[in-house]
Amino acid sequence: MTTANGTSFEVTERTRLRRRPARGAYDEATVFGILDAGIVAHVGYAIEGQPRVVATAYWREGRTLYWHGAAGSQALRAQAGGIPICVTVSQVDGLVLGRSGFAHSLNYRSVMAFGRSEAVTDRAAKRRGMDAFIERLYPGRTREIRRVQDAELDMIAVIGMHIDEASAKVREGGVNEKDEDLAGPGWAGVIPVHTTLGAPCTDARIGTGVALPPSIGAFTQDARLDLALGENARAVRD
Amino acid sequence: MTTANGTSFEVTERTRLRRRPARGAYDEATVFGILDAGIVAHVGYAIEGQPRVVATAYWREGRTLYWHGAAGSQALRAQAGGIPICVTVSQVDGLVLGRSGFAHSLNYRSVMAFGRSEAVTDRAAKRRGMDAFIERLYPGRTREIRRVQDAELDMIAVIGMHIDEASAKVREGGVNEKDEDLAGPGWAGVIPVHTTLGAPCTDARIGTGVALPPSIGAFTQDARLDLALGENARAVRD
Repeated sequence: MTTANGTSFEVTERTRLRRRPARGAYDEATVFGILDAGIVAHVGYAIEGQPRVVATAYWREGRTLYWHGAAGSQALRAQAGGIPICVTVSQVDGLVLGRSGFAHSLNYRSVMAFGRSEAVTDRAAKRRGMDAFIERLYPGRTREIRRVQDAELDMIAVIGMHIDEASAKVREGGVNEKDEDLAGPGWAGVIPVHTTLGAPCTDARIGTGVALPPSIGAFTQDARLDLALGENARAVRD
Repeated sequence: MTTANGTSFEVTERTRLRRRPARGAYDEATVFGILDAGIVAHVGYAIEGQPRVVATAYWREGRTLYWHGAAGSQALRAQAGGIPICVTVSQVDGLVLGRSGFAHSLNYRSVMAFGRSEAVTDRAAKRRGMDAFIERLYPGRTREIRRVQDAELDMIAVIGMHIDEASAKVREGGVNEKDEDLAGPGWAGVIPVHTTLGAPCTDARIGTGVALPPSIGAFTQDARLDLALGENARAVRD
C-alpha cells in the first residue's frame, strides 16, 4: 500500500487489520482518496443493540464526514443526539477468478471510519454544508443555480462525524493461487469492474438552447465516476 | 414501484418507509431483484453499542443471505454467536441535477434487511454454501475448477442471516423541481451511472490455448454488472 508523506490515522484496536495486514492502510492520502472517489457511504448506528445501515451520499471536510436528509428522518433524528457511528465506503474494482474456489476474490477499495455523530443545527453552517456537498460533486454548481432557501434548510437535517479512527483496505492485482493449483486446468484471471457515466439526459422542460454546464465537465460520457469525483474533489480543494 | 404477484415482506415499524413512501417496496420480486443484482453488501452489527459496517460479498438462498470470511475474523466470530444484523445493499443508477440545490438527488436502488446472524458450522453445509456462492457469480464454475478442500473449509467461517424483515427503496426517473424553479435559468437533467465490465485479463501463468470459460459468459466487455449478476442468479435458479 502507498505510504503517505503526510499524516496517518492512529492504528487502534478497532481499526488494526488482523487478517492480511498488507491490504491495510491508515494514511490520510489513501483514506481520503477512497472517500473522495466515492459517492454513497453506508452509515451504521445502533439503537438498543439493533444495528441499522443506511446508504447515503456524503461529503468530507478535512477529517469530518457529513451527510443529510429529511429533518423528520428517524435515522437522522437518532444520529442528531450524538451516538457512535461507523461509516463504510467501498468500491468494487474487479472480479478475480482462480483455479480453485478459494482463489476467487474481488478487487476493491474500502474505508471504515469511526466517530460520533453530531447535528449541524446552525442555519448558516447548514447552508455552507449543503453548498460544499453540491460543490464536491459539481464544482461551480452553486453559482449556476439559485441560492438555497431558508425554508429548505429548515426541512433538512445535516449530520457531521469527526473521524476519530479510520482504516483503508485495498485488494488489487491478479490471482493469488496455491502453487499446487498453478499447473491445474482451466482459466484464471481478472475481469475489471468500473462505474462509468452515460450521456447526460437533459430534462424535457429545458429549452433546446441550454448548454451542458461547466460544473459537470468531469462527467463526460464513459468517464469513470470514481476518477471524476476525485478530480472534482481536488478542483474544489485547490 | 412494481407490485409483485408473489409474497411480500411484512411491513414493520422497522422497515416502513416514513419519508417518501412511494419509493418503498416490500415484495420479494423487488427485494430479491436488487439483492441478486448486487455483489457487495454492507453488513452492520453492534458490539456493546459500537456499530460496525463491513463490506462483503454475499449470496442468497430464498430468504436467507450468506457471507463468509477467514475463520479468525473478529467480525465473523462476533456474528457467529448470533446477534442482530442489518444488511444493506445499494446501487447508484444516476446523478440528478435540478435548478436548485434542493432538487439535486441520486437515482438508486437499495435494500435494507434485518435478521439475526447464525454460523454455518457443518462442513458439508459450508461446502454447499461456498459452491452456491461461486455458482451465483459464475454459473457452472464449480465444474470448471477443482473441488474445495476440507482444509480450506476449515479456514473459513460462513454466516447466514434469515431475512426477518426487509424493504427496498428506489429512486428512478428525472428531476423533481418546484414549479417556481421550472422557469429558472440553467441546465437540469440526469447523468446515468452504470457499473460495467472490462475485458477479461487472463492470468500470466495460463497457457495461450486456454479459452475463456462458459461460466463468465454473461460478463462480456462493457456488459452491465448488475444485469449480468441478475441473469446469472436466474440461470442458477431455473
